[in-house]
Amino acid sequence: MRLAELSERSGVPTATIKYYLRERLLPPGTRVTATQSEYGEDHLRRLRLVRALIQVGRMPVATAREVLAATDDETLDQNTRLGAAVWALPHGPEPDEDDPAVAAARLQVDGLLERLGWEHGLESGAASPAYGMLVAAVATLARLGYPHDSDHLAFQAGLAAELARADLDLVEAYPTPAERIEAAVALTVLYEPVLQSLRRLAQAEESTRRFGGR
Amino acid sequence: MRLAELSERSGVPTATIKYYLRERLLPPGTRVTATQSEYGEDHLRRLRLVRALIQVGRMPVATAREVLAATDDETLDQNTRLGAAVWALPHGPEPDEDDPAVAAARLQVDGLLERLGWEHGLESGAASPAYGMLVAAVATLARLGYPHDSDHLAFQAGLAAELARADLDLVEAYPTPAERIEAAVALTVLYEPVLQSLRRLAQAEESTRRFGGR
Repeated sequence: MRLAELSERSGVPTATIKYYLRERLLPPGTRVTATQSEYGEDHLRRLRLVRALIQVGRMPVATAREVLAATDDETLDQNTRLGAAVWALPHGPEPDEDDPAVAAARLQVDGLLERLGWEHGLESGAASPAYGMLVAAVATLARLGYPHDSDHLAFQAGLAAELARADLDLVEAYPTPAERIEAAVALTVLYEPVLQSLRRLAQAEESTRRFGGR
Repeated sequence: MRLAELSERSGVPTATIKYYLRERLLPPGTRVTATQSEYGEDHLRRLRLVRALIQVGRMPVATAREVLAATDDETLDQNTRLGAAVWALPHGPEPDEDDPAVAAARLQVDGLLERLGWEHGLESGAASPAYGMLVAAVATLARLGYPHDSDHLAFQAGLAAELARADLDLVEAYPTPAERIEAAVALTVLYEPVLQSLRRLAQAEESTRRFGGR
């Protein structure tokens, strides 16, 4: 398809597509004349992912390029590519290592991962951005004096594991490794606001039930 | 306690506390001399909440003032104050009403709330920011061609309801209505990065299990 059709089918304006091409977020099409290129279904799919990262995930262009490079690196096996792509997603503030609450939170998180049998998390440890994000969040709860005991974290982790199994079921339904990696990144980003809003709606229901009075 | 002790016990620098006082995020202390004021446990607790909103929730000062005003409004019953405070939290982009995907997403979300029996969500509908956030997120999934069927959303909502019950259990453990409202706002904000990071860690575990090869 030509640029105009790619724009129409993706809903992305041609100027934006040209910008993504210049920024190498989208591979070049096949040149057919001096001024025209031909694009395929791969371009359409990649464009969807780029929009998910930049417009929904609010990712800077440089970060998106990093995520895409990880999804494309065929020297890595599928699990590593999938992990690398998710690792490159933004993860909020890093834990402040000078803070004594961070050292305590790290011990607590390690204990939690051990109790859960999450070996991958234990092995990647400090190298994993999600691990760092969890340590920072637990340290903040502790510093501000809010509940963060390991039983509560283990309960939340159990629900997170159920979500992750459902996420991976959706990812596995895609036929090719490239599509699975793209879907993993997109669904990680796109379901975050779904889960956040459902939790807030559920809180409102539960609060109304307990404290009554609308 | 004096300002210096409030700073020491809260870990917030005195200059920051003075800024919060000027911005009316913190009520004034009781003046004891021309230059000194006395602060109580209420101030310490409020300071914790302000830090949760601004430093963790990355909330603009004006928004934080709005959240705090809602938690303080004693003309409202407890459930309304709690709801108002959570409603004032940032909720990401509003749904774009000119987008046909938004109208379809709205119908789907209404159907979901009905199926779940979430009457509060149905009644508040478009007025609730969490409802708007969910509509926008579902519309984005649809527009980009990613899975968003109602069974999957209902499954996620079921897990969100379990989280909400646990959240409200923690909130109910606080003895006074003011503390419960503060805890509800703080825990809504502070547990979001906990849940996000646990989901990503769980995805990495599940992916390693299914696709192997570390």
